[in-house]
Amino acid sequence: MATKERTTLLLNWYANPYHTPIFAAKALGYYQDAGIHLAILETTDPSDVTEIVGLGNVDFGLKAMIHTIAARAKGFGITSIGTLLDEPPTGLLALKSSGIKTFSDIVGKRIGYVGEFGKRIVDDLAKLAGIDPTSYQSVRVGMNVVDAIARNKIDAGIGFINFQLVELETLCGEAILLRLDQLAGLGCCCFCSIQYITHENVIKHNPELVAAFLRATQRGAAFTTEHPEEAFEIFCQAKPQLKNEMYKKIFIRSLPFFSRNLLNVERDWNKVCRYAKHLNILNSDFDIQTVYTNKFVPDHPFSEVEPIACCLA
Amino acid sequence: MATKERTTLLLNWYANPYHTPIFAAKALGYYQDAGIHLAILETTDPSDVTEIVGLGNVDFGLKAMIHTIAARAKGFGITSIGTLLDEPPTGLLALKSSGIKTFSDIVGKRIGYVGEFGKRIVDDLAKLAGIDPTSYQSVRVGMNVVDAIARNKIDAGIGFINFQLVELETLCGEAILLRLDQLAGLGCCCFCSIQYITHENVIKHNPELVAAFLRATQRGAAFTTEHPEEAFEIFCQAKPQLKNEMYKKIFIRSLPFFSRNLLNVERDWNKVCRYAKHLNILNSDFDIQTVYTNKFVPDHPFSEVEPIACCLA
Repeated sequence: MATKERTTLLLNWYANPYHTPIFAAKALGYYQDAGIHLAILETTDPSDVTEIVGLGNVDFGLKAMIHTIAARAKGFGITSIGTLLDEPPTGLLALKSSGIKTFSDIVGKRIGYVGEFGKRIVDDLAKLAGIDPTSYQSVRVGMNVVDAIARNKIDAGIGFINFQLVELETLCGEAILLRLDQLAGLGCCCFCSIQYITHENVIKHNPELVAAFLRATQRGAAFTTEHPEEAFEIFCQAKPQLKNEMYKKIFIRSLPFFSRNLLNVERDWNKVCRYAKHLNILNSDFDIQTVYTNKFVPDHPFSEVEPIACCLA
Repeated sequence: MATKERTTLLLNWYANPYHTPIFAAKALGYYQDAGIHLAILETTDPSDVTEIVGLGNVDFGLKAMIHTIAARAKGFGITSIGTLLDEPPTGLLALKSSGIKTFSDIVGKRIGYVGEFGKRIVDDLAKLAGIDPTSYQSVRVGMNVVDAIARNKIDAGIGFINFQLVELETLCGEAILLRLDQLAGLGCCCFCSIQYITHENVIKHNPELVAAFLRATQRGAAFTTEHPEEAFEIFCQAKPQLKNEMYKKIFIRSLPFFSRNLLNVERDWNKVCRYAKHLNILNSDFDIQTVYTNKFVPDHPFSEVEPIACCLA
């Protein structure tokens, strides 16, 4: 059982439909059942999250795999304890009217990025493609890539197939997505998998809290994937300003990417580690095993009914 | 490249929205790209499938994990080469008006089952729960569990949360699902994971066909999970009689369960093996490693664009 008054979780973004498992777990009392009074915090700048978790100012956070690795490389004591979204396909998105059809069309264009690593990835791809780094302009747009395209501040920016692409198509018209994983020959979009992270001190001093948090969260993930309409309704009760057809579509598009068991995927961490070394974010001797643990992920999902037997005993 | 005129795939059921990855791969020319002219066959009795695949009458089939194992135990040379649906939650479903609330309420009721192993599972649970096996009636209903409930031929039957539960709620009113995995304390519904199966002779004599089939099918799975609305539209073009809101809901409910990488999950095969031994479907010395292979699953998903580089080389 948890021992604190409030437990804090800092989201990687504003609260949106891909956070439904967390809001479902809260609204259905799963955190309460686990002895946790969860305060869910949003960020107005995604680039602030790793430092706030890394300084131990909050108990838990959400962040992409590559950012989690990068935070460790900077010396923050951050560990991934589980997965929210598995490999959501990510790419450079643009309106068809921008004329951008392939990656080399970025020449002469304004390319938006959220934070440091998005820029690194685009710059690395440009270098590999033999594109002059002064031939395109990089623009930091933070949270609001789609708004920046809509207001003609950038020609293209980085986003998820299940989120910003839906926004752009809904708000502005036909769009394309050039997948970064495919451009980079990575074979998966795992660098964008979104992880539950915590500080090593939380693991050290309150491992019961970590286990309780994941137990409740896994129930929320199961509920969301097994009862999607009810789960989205619950999310909308927490965020009524997002109750519209566009966010419903974003929710449905996110369904295939929710991790149902919350496990960190070893193969993906290994891939992202190699990619981060390629990008010079990590030293070549970095040990990826130190960045994540599945020790606190529940062995068995919560059962709504009393089992008649444990047939696998 | 494939060498045959027609390659045959026998579905586990009538063609329905959870088969969308296959229909998408066919309609989008992915099988053609892989040199395969795929004939997709439906069954009017799911219990016929393992024998037809096992006798080598078709090239590929679809079947649940537990049936695949059971077929091997009967001596059919069947191997799982990949996964269509990962752990769709499965249970005993009934109308709320039936009065069934917990498993022990089956006493005095008519319980429908599809084929042999559904009955074995229910009978085993009843035995473990101390329920007299003559106190409830088992009724073989084959394909049509929901229709049998609707026509009052049975009080409860076995179905998926993303399929028969949606049908029952849409057609007949409020319903419940008592999850078999939870009743049995299994910790997952992997025994119902749906696998791509083939005969060992196909693997032996035409391994290129197996690899080509999975390469195209994986593209279909990626398309379905990344472009769900378009994928469902494509499915409806192949099966226009299913173009309605109920089947669309079934499709959306199935999205979280589609395997995106098609991999056989070792942990799940091990669990189902132990469960099958508990049910006396398998001898205790059965080696589960012989029943599945990931050798033909594509290492990297198909890329729509020419990579600029392979950053993980």
